[in-house]
Amino acid sequence: MSFINEDFLLRSDAARQLYHEYAADQPIFDYHCHIPPEDIAIDRQFDNIFEVWLEGDHYKWRAMRANGMAEEYCTGDASPHEKFRAWARTVPYTLRNPLYHWSHLELKRYFGIETLLDEKSADAIWEEANRQLTGGGLTVHGILRKFQVKVVCTTDDPTDSLEHHRTIADSDLETRVYPAFRPDRALGVDQPATFNAWTDALAAVSNIDCTTFALFLEALDSRHRFFHDMGGRLSDHGLEVAVADFSSESEAAAIYDRARTGQAASMDDHARFATFMMVFFGQLAAGRGWTKPLPLGPLRNQNTRMFEKIGGDTGFDSIGDARHVRPLGRYLDRLAREDALPKCILYSVNPADNYLLGTMIGNFQDGSVAGKMQLGSGWWYLDQKEGMEWQMNALSNTGLLSRFVGMLTDSRSFMSYPRHEYFRRVLCNLVGADMENGELPDDMELVGGMVRNIAYRNAREFFGMEPA
Amino acid sequence: MSFINEDFLLRSDAARQLYHEYAADQPIFDYHCHIPPEDIAIDRQFDNIFEVWLEGDHYKWRAMRANGMAEEYCTGDASPHEKFRAWARTVPYTLRNPLYHWSHLELKRYFGIETLLDEKSADAIWEEANRQLTGGGLTVHGILRKFQVKVVCTTDDPTDSLEHHRTIADSDLETRVYPAFRPDRALGVDQPATFNAWTDALAAVSNIDCTTFALFLEALDSRHRFFHDMGGRLSDHGLEVAVADFSSESEAAAIYDRARTGQAASMDDHARFATFMMVFFGQLAAGRGWTKPLPLGPLRNQNTRMFEKIGGDTGFDSIGDARHVRPLGRYLDRLAREDALPKCILYSVNPADNYLLGTMIGNFQDGSVAGKMQLGSGWWYLDQKEGMEWQMNALSNTGLLSRFVGMLTDSRSFMSYPRHEYFRRVLCNLVGADMENGELPDDMELVGGMVRNIAYRNAREFFGMEPA
Amino acid sequence: MSFINEDFLLRSDAARQLYHEYAADQPIFDYHCHIPPEDIAIDRQFDNIFEVWLEGDHYKWRAMRANGMAEEYCTGDASPHEKFRAWARTVPYTLRNPLYHWSHLELKRYFGIETLLDEKSADAIWEEANRQLTGGGLTVHGILRKFQVKVVCTTDDPTDSLEHHRTIADSDLETRVYPAFRPDRALGVDQPATFNAWTDALAAVSNIDCTTFALFLEALDSRHRFFHDMGGRLSDHGLEVAVADFSSESEAAAIYDRARTGQAASMDDHARFATFMMVFFGQLAAGRGWTKPLPLGPLRNQNTRMFEKIGGDTGFDSIGDARHVRPLGRYLDRLAREDALPKCILYSVNPADNYLLGTMIGNFQDGSVAGKMQLGSGWWYLDQKEGMEWQMNALSNTGLLSRFVGMLTDSRSFMSYPRHEYFRRVLCNLVGADMENGELPDDMELVGGMVRNIAYRNAREFFGMEPA
Repeated sequence: MSFINEDFLLRSDAARQLYHEYAADQPIFDYHCHIPPEDIAIDRQFDNIFEVWLEGDHYKWRAMRANGMAEEYCTGDASPHEKFRAWARTVPYTLRNPLYHWSHLELKRYFGIETLLDEKSADAIWEEANRQLTGGGLTVHGILRKFQVKVVCTTDDPTDSLEHHRTIADSDLETRVYPAFRPDRALGVDQPATFNAWTDALAAVSNIDCTTFALFLEALDSRHRFFHDMGGRLSDHGLEVAVADFSSESEAAAIYDRARTGQAASMDDHARFATFMMVFFGQLAAGRGWTKPLPLGPLRNQNTRMFEKIGGDTGFDSIGDARHVRPLGRYLDRLAREDALPKCILYSVNPADNYLLGTMIGNFQDGSVAGKMQLGSGWWYLDQKEGMEWQMNALSNTGLLSRFVGMLTDSRSFMSYPRHEYFRRVLCNLVGADMENGELPDDMELVGGMVRNIAYRNAREFFGMEPA
Repeated sequence: MSFINEDFLLRSDAARQLYHEYAADQPIFDYHCHIPPEDIAIDRQFDNIFEVWLEGDHYKWRAMRANGMAEEYCTGDASPHEKFRAWARTVPYTLRNPLYHWSHLELKRYFGIETLLDEKSADAIWEEANRQLTGGGLTVHGILRKFQVKVVCTTDDPTDSLEHHRTIADSDLETRVYPAFRPDRALGVDQPATFNAWTDALAAVSNIDCTTFALFLEALDSRHRFFHDMGGRLSDHGLEVAVADFSSESEAAAIYDRARTGQAASMDDHARFATFMMVFFGQLAAGRGWTKPLPLGPLRNQNTRMFEKIGGDTGFDSIGDARHVRPLGRYLDRLAREDALPKCILYSVNPADNYLLGTMIGNFQDGSVAGKMQLGSGWWYLDQKEGMEWQMNALSNTGLLSRFVGMLTDSRSFMSYPRHEYFRRVLCNLVGADMENGELPDDMELVGGMVRNIAYRNAREFFGMEPA
Repeated sequence: MSFINEDFLLRSDAARQLYHEYAADQPIFDYHCHIPPEDIAIDRQFDNIFEVWLEGDHYKWRAMRANGMAEEYCTGDASPHEKFRAWARTVPYTLRNPLYHWSHLELKRYFGIETLLDEKSADAIWEEANRQLTGGGLTVHGILRKFQVKVVCTTDDPTDSLEHHRTIADSDLETRVYPAFRPDRALGVDQPATFNAWTDALAAVSNIDCTTFALFLEALDSRHRFFHDMGGRLSDHGLEVAVADFSSESEAAAIYDRARTGQAASMDDHARFATFMMVFFGQLAAGRGWTKPLPLGPLRNQNTRMFEKIGGDTGFDSIGDARHVRPLGRYLDRLAREDALPKCILYSVNPADNYLLGTMIGNFQDGSVAGKMQLGSGWWYLDQKEGMEWQMNALSNTGLLSRFVGMLTDSRSFMSYPRHEYFRRVLCNLVGADMENGELPDDMELVGGMVRNIAYRNAREFFGMEPA
């Protein structure tokens, strides 16, 4: 029997029935990812499995480095085939790491390959996968169709023209592709050079000259409206910790003016400015009925030497232990007091925060929308069986699992859609075990309905992008 | 087979035998709750299930808000019957939340109702429950008898006359009802108006004029003695974090004097005064052989808007991430150094603290009383299967589970006694699994004896309220 | 069937096969412990089981105090036999504590005793164990042979002459015994009296007069080289938290000079000096290819009263909640930037830190050595089944379990070698369950090979002490 068989991760009869009858055939609503819209617009065809699978995957680089592979084979100059071989040599050492599951699930679902990947099988798999990729069926559009991806939300800078989104909207691709608004650079008053270049670009794209802070906010509002018109209903933010250093608009404006003249904000001023902007973005989101994910907790670029060599997002980030629930609470409270609290999804990459955030969302559920405040699915290092189970147990015990909007890929790769399958299997296994243990009623319609909702329907209803 | 059957939560033969033969028939020793003594004194009869079940239950309100129910149906103006229906509509969405278990267990144990509560069954259950409540058997005294509640400890302000406790003591109720001493308001020097009103009440009830700090302490001591004479052996405190800002009596007196003249204490002075008082209360407890629970960690009233509308204890509290083990250690150390460390029970609402507190108690076990320092059972958001298991595993691995004083309801409702049954089932399931896996000896007397002790006997011996 | 049978802790067929065929016969590589080298040098014979089992074991003292045993029977004046009886009375109250498993496993493996230890069996077990101990087979050398201990690394002060290590090296003992370099006292500029006495001893043993800071560093380097020549390849440090207050050598030298004239360093200066020294020790370790364990997180000596009575390491330490990942990251980053990062093993006694450290090591894997940065096995209070499973799951999910160097005893007792067996059983049970659940391939050679490596071979290769 192959390693990844049809009942993979499903350890009870109830789990198997839940998965196969209620979850497996649901489409995918991928409400947050980092795939390049251009690749969708041009229906990119990949030359080899390296391009679609390894290029840009810092999870795999971390595993390879830990396995004693030189940087040359991760981000360096080795050829795609050599890099693939180095990865293949590492795979048998990833036993029990989610990469072992993900990799074999992906090989199976994309290419029908059931052989375990290792040094010996590497070349045959390289050939077979490349043959299929260049054969035409597994272009970007082919992949989106194959996995029934109904919706993809990309991640975009407010200054982005969204031209690729237009191209996609005009194409015959059934998958709807929406932008998400990620205005991290609007907070960067501590680095005036970068900030000013970006602000100038914002002025240009919005046709609103940003000579004053009020105009800056107006320009951002205008881009937010534009994203909204293009179907966007989600923002994204790259904060390490929640901010709650409130200041008046005139104080924020003064910090803005100084940055525009090249004067870097102090740490305190930066925090005040960031807080002001995050409140502003909250207001924008609430005003247009958007959802605001708040992912918190990573420590980024911990290895300065490598950062200086190869830049960020290369696998040198880890989990932080900042205490953020007080400022997070104050931030949400501020929006709630103004009646400007949007739908939110709280994430922390630190598993010790699950219960903290699970109870925090309860403080701001206001009865206006079912599941208005969400605890996000296992994120980053928690995007694996144990991490998903922790998140679902925390949400179950402190809130309403039944209202959960479920999984997203958060991925830079088009080979991550089986992550939704993985999540659904973990969900069904968890809930199925409860049924078999008598901890949930033996009522397949009741429990299966919840599973189906979490797999797809809750997200479709919650984000308000799609006709029901 | 009904959802809550006789082997609910008991997943092994050993677990079933442990529960049915050693735990099920043990009486209840409810050493901490928030039920109104007046209701016991007057043997309150409830008009409907709303009164006994929903009124004041912020767990249910949180679930309802998360499910998109308007505040009107939680704390608002809707009728009891409408509120019950709104709750019934929410119940099917609480699958995997402890409310789903608790609610059905309570309906079954109080009313013999086995139907799952939902929108369809709501009216029939409303009728049946109300019929039984108004029929006379399920008055407060009836409930206490039905659940074999031997001891109830209420939570009382030092200024309370304890008249209801007297009435109860003079009645023929078999359950003994003792006060607990909760002097939170004695710390409130940061809010002189409230503090002074309360201090005046203290002076009046104690007949000790509180013109000096020494007299204030004397008045508190006098009330503590009065509570002791009324059978009290436990205090309670509503701290968010442990305090360890020690000061001399003269410094504390100066802060007191300023507050008495209407001058609010600064944050630092408040912390110093609170520390002084907590040491004083520790001394009182040690002197009279009391037990001091120290529940730490919640963030209260996070939603200002709702706090201003409907006040506290309404479901807007969550789990904090304060670091409190260092000050907690210093506080306990101070008492230990003075030979004035009472029996203590440490609680944290943050599950990440279980091991921290489980090892902290070991630092102050002094051999004088078995299990002198206790790790409290799963509290608040942790009062569910996962949370109870974490607490029991942490205590087992870092201390002596066998000396654990077990469960309490911590409830505002007379419908919470099945929480003890729930706890015992979780305990038996955990320990029974160990027996079946060979991780505990296959010796039913040895292990069953431990279970029986944790269910009832340890508490009876530990608190020293009852003849053995 | 006896309590500890051959399949103890092994709950699946795969687990049993993994343990018995791949793990059980592997030798022991005990890369960190606190046993006195003198006892090995003289091949100590124990007069009774108290000497080899209870003397110095603060885990047992904590359990006894929690069980209401007076200090007299822990660290006090009671006779060895009385103390053993007091411990025996406590054992049945340790159900579910790791002591219950460890104790019975130790009695069985050393003495073949299968009776459960309690008050009734105490005297017979005392007699039988003492008979065997004084019979000659269970001397220190006999024990090391019996448990196939190939390597022992002790923990030694830089000023130690290592004479016992020489004696052992010259003996016919097959076990190789290497020193580890623990220079905690080189950081103590906050306590000049102790620091200066120690520095004078360092000067004497190194023949390098420490009149300047540069000479002090040279003396330490010289001792490090000496330890290296004696086969040492590991250091040890007793930090509570990571330090990252960098300063220049001249600043550190000024602090040193002041301490040498009797002037205690301020807290800030102490942190700066400690940071400088920790960087220096990192450089030494990197330069000679050593491994640096960094155990973080305990709160020591929390009970001042007992500390003043009976000193440290007596069972009054608990788990801290310091936030240390940022400074830890900065410390490692500093070494990495200088190309002076040695192999490291990160430990935290707080289980909430497992994922934090598991991802932190990934930031500094550099491809030079497989598993260069390690997440250490469950330490101190986490050295039990739940704690080991957490550590292995965290490492699996965030890194490469297959490269794990596995277990150590960290013990002061010669009766701790079954801790390796315990660890291997937990490992095999965990991994075997994955095989049975289809979460690992059903390939016994692949998975068994990993188990064998973790049990012994990874450590042998990693530390570079032994010919392969």
